Amino acid sequence: MPDTKGLVIVNTGNGKGKTTAALGLALRAWGQGLRVLVVQFIKGNWKYGELKAAEKLGPDFVIRQLGEGFVKHAKANANADHQSAAQTALAIARAEIASGGWDLIILDEINYAVKFGLVTVSECLELIGLKSGQMHLVFTGRDARPELIDCADLVTEMRAVKHPYQQGVKAQKGIEF
Amino acid sequence: MPDTKGLVIVNTGNGKGKTTAALGLALRAWGQGLRVLVVQFIKGNWKYGELKAAEKLGPDFVIRQLGEGFVKHAKANANADHQSAAQTALAIARAEIASGGWDLIILDEINYAVKFGLVTVSECLELIGLKSGQMHLVFTGRDARPELIDCADLVTEMRAVKHPYQQGVKAQKGIEF
Repeated sequence: MPDTKGLVIVNTGNGKGKTTAALGLALRAWGQGLRVLVVQFIKGNWKYGELKAAEKLGPDFVIRQLGEGFVKHAKANANADHQSAAQTALAIARAEIASGGWDLIILDEINYAVKFGLVTVSECLELIGLKSGQMHLVFTGRDARPELIDCADLVTEMRAVKHPYQQGVKAQKGIEF
Repeated sequence: MPDTKGLVIVNTGNGKGKTTAALGLALRAWGQGLRVLVVQFIKGNWKYGELKAAEKLGPDFVIRQLGEGFVKHAKANANADHQSAAQTALAIARAEIASGGWDLIILDEINYAVKFGLVTVSECLELIGLKSGQMHLVFTGRDARPELIDCADLVTEMRAVKHPYQQGVKAQKGIEF
């Protein structure tokens, strides 16, 4: 086994920090001169802080938002818009992974898209097969499937111990979005 | 209780992503125009990707490295250099929190400094008392003390499910540092 290799990384669990840790990894990688792409499978047209940041960071830090907003219930796969948006994200992920133009690609909330039947777990695993040996690929979202975990090199579960929503504090600019 | 407030956030656990998620939060906050300071209590003179990134991001995203490198064993508190460096970091954290010049301050690896007796848990809790109502304060590092968790608004445990070191893959530029 080589000393270094492109890693398959999974951030899952019910806590905060799955997307946020992927974003931190992206910043670190970008700082080291790597080219970073984030493909968002679920989040919609929110004005995320990360989008504003990415705009300032230039062409080697790109976020593509393709999802149709948060999926609210298990019948999302009956919603043609969600299905179509997730499949578009998948097609773009395939092309970008295969292009070799990126050192790190984050498939943000793809696990969530799988959970709600918008993408299949087989389609996820196929993405891993498309990547070059040195490319890092990150899958985020709760309820990562065991088949994906089996294929991953680094898996972290973010577990919520305490959350401010429990105390009636709203989501805040710069923290949650 | 107000709808928004400065949060006390704790990222702990044995997994990856504690510092990384704090870094992602910092990038999101910076993207929203917040002023971000990271005070590193333990990490030493590594050429971290985040340091290189911070240099590119300008005066509203600052990382101050004050620690003396990773603490290897429980006798670190016998090491005057470690103790002195952590206490310097603490003094700087106090001054910067009280200054009101930052919207988000990350006390990176401070929990680790507490664990090894370089900083007391009381000194940690005093930092919370110094912050303004809208300022966010993040404590990272494994084995966060229960007294700190009691005072926090948002606590996440990063749990290692699978780690590439187990497979003989080395720490990699852009991923771990």
